[in-house]
Amino acid sequence: LTSAPASALVRASTDLLQAAGLPARRAHRSAAAIVLADRWRIGSHGLMRLPFYLTRLEAGGIDPKADLREVRRTTSVVAFDGGGGLGHWQVWSAVDTAVGLSRASGVGVAAVGNSSHSGALGVYANRLREAGQAGLVLSNGPAAMPAWGGSRPVLSTSPIAGAVPSPTGGAVVDMATSTVTRGRIVQYAQDNRPLEPGWAFDSTGTPTTDPKLALSGMIAPVGGAKGFALAYLIESLTGGLIGPLLSRDVVDPFAANRASEHQGVSHLVVAIDPRSLDVDGRHEDRLSQLEKEVAASGGRVPGRRRIKSSASIEIEPDLMRSLLAWAERLDARIAVAILANELTGVRR
Amino acid sequence: LTSAPASALVRASTDLLQAAGLPARRAHRSAAAIVLADRWRIGSHGLMRLPFYLTRLEAGGIDPKADLREVRRTTSVVAFDGGGGLGHWQVWSAVDTAVGLSRASGVGVAAVGNSSHSGALGVYANRLREAGQAGLVLSNGPAAMPAWGGSRPVLSTSPIAGAVPSPTGGAVVDMATSTVTRGRIVQYAQDNRPLEPGWAFDSTGTPTTDPKLALSGMIAPVGGAKGFALAYLIESLTGGLIGPLLSRDVVDPFAANRASEHQGVSHLVVAIDPRSLDVDGRHEDRLSQLEKEVAASGGRVPGRRRIKSSASIEIEPDLMRSLLAWAERLDARIAVAILANELTGVRR
Repeated sequence: LTSAPASALVRASTDLLQAAGLPARRAHRSAAAIVLADRWRIGSHGLMRLPFYLTRLEAGGIDPKADLREVRRTTSVVAFDGGGGLGHWQVWSAVDTAVGLSRASGVGVAAVGNSSHSGALGVYANRLREAGQAGLVLSNGPAAMPAWGGSRPVLSTSPIAGAVPSPTGGAVVDMATSTVTRGRIVQYAQDNRPLEPGWAFDSTGTPTTDPKLALSGMIAPVGGAKGFALAYLIESLTGGLIGPLLSRDVVDPFAANRASEHQGVSHLVVAIDPRSLDVDGRHEDRLSQLEKEVAASGGRVPGRRRIKSSASIEIEPDLMRSLLAWAERLDARIAVAILANELTGVRR
Repeated sequence: LTSAPASALVRASTDLLQAAGLPARRAHRSAAAIVLADRWRIGSHGLMRLPFYLTRLEAGGIDPKADLREVRRTTSVVAFDGGGGLGHWQVWSAVDTAVGLSRASGVGVAAVGNSSHSGALGVYANRLREAGQAGLVLSNGPAAMPAWGGSRPVLSTSPIAGAVPSPTGGAVVDMATSTVTRGRIVQYAQDNRPLEPGWAFDSTGTPTTDPKLALSGMIAPVGGAKGFALAYLIESLTGGLIGPLLSRDVVDPFAANRASEHQGVSHLVVAIDPRSLDVDGRHEDRLSQLEKEVAASGGRVPGRRRIKSSASIEIEPDLMRSLLAWAERLDARIAVAILANELTGVRR
């Protein structure tokens, strides 16, 4: 791993996404969201994904010119068709829409259907927090988890993110309702290590600690029946209610032979204005008090390390080389200059 | 255990709550909510609690004459001060408020602060489902869980319920974000059985399998850090934002020496109109498809057994005798007649 300034990588990624056809502002918003995941050390949802997005943008599975088309609007809810666009700028825009509605109505909801992977949902919950709003961000994705007691994948890892604003920092919750990520299982397979019991199933739904059987099988919901119930709710509120697809039919973003197909992912953003709920005007004191007590008792406020993210990121030189090759191919000259410069002095 | 018709026990409970001072309609709503938990076989949140509610009503910890006082109203959100009233009718009313707002605005939120225990939150999520609404119901309660890695209780078991309507039945999610309930630990203590590893901590935050140490200690969040993060979010959205109290300061409803104090519980109801989110008009088909796939793969749709609840309940004769004693004392003559009749022929 080598260290690189996050701002330079945001500029390089913006240039790459613009070269792939995205308008400047959307390219920049998406790049900032991607690199923020790396700044938070969730590399699995950061720049590591950019070559896959570029592949899908080139193949047509992500439409760089897609808009957010307003399909329905009620007083406090807007539903958009994402037209197969990149998830990052689309969820970011959905947050802006939900925040606007919430400031006017006390609560605001924005739904995006027919979208794509949007990286780490905590990025968008953090934006809610920065806007002084509480709320939730939910997505679906390709099916990877069985029903509790079930033998086939029917749900995605069903991520949920949550935002809590407060004068002393607030909190960002960001988790999948699966025991572990698929990426973690890949690592165990590479290291030839057995998984912890309870993490995964083989393709028939039988528990396994063999990472290779797990990779062709399924990931377990966290906490068994409870994680499944939550994931069922998340799938219902995204793929079910928004659409157009249930997780079963969502396209795997890593599947090279399906890079030309829209993924069909759904996202839901709920923003709640803290002032609209408060019965005695003291919510800021209480939230700060809660943060203080968690820390004083030896715990950690969720997302606290992320809120204080660093200005530089750790990145694999091989990933930078792969991005440089993409930049050369797409004639993204700013990206070429930045990545070549960052790679200067990195040992091959 | 003996079997009794649910309708008779709703009538008896209504009469008891009226005799304790509640207006008829609120007494009936509360009784129906209490008995529904028994019909769902969540006895820990059903009639077993009624003697404790009656004790608190008598001592002043629950105010039978409390209203829901509207403190704030924005376009799609209403916040109520519950004035120390019984949680059951207050959350039920909050559902009605949220559903009304949602039908008008696409989403509706009702918050109740300064309320009391309301039994099983799934009861209210089920009402959302019956009204054709998706949504969430959250509450806080007395602190029973530590932060992940923490040594003191800072969060309640932080329950969350969810509603999904569909033409084929829909779903009701109803869970605490703790590994197990306190009631389950009491049972293990009575049976002198060791707990499963991971369920509980002693009073210093050290993991324990001794149920007696656990009872004076804390319950673990489900899935470790993930359950804690969710519980933190739930506490923030209830005790934090609504108030007036964080879980740390909420009064234990079983504490005999504090029966005269308002509990200070907060509840949040979010209702989302399914039609407001749907990008292609096919959400009902998708939700039915999801239910079908979960069942076909060997799993179970959350709450499905509850939705098909029975008309009779299983109840401890000793609990009926305790309720009969309350009925005699409060001169609740309908309750006396029903309970005496149900106890006829039950062996002592």
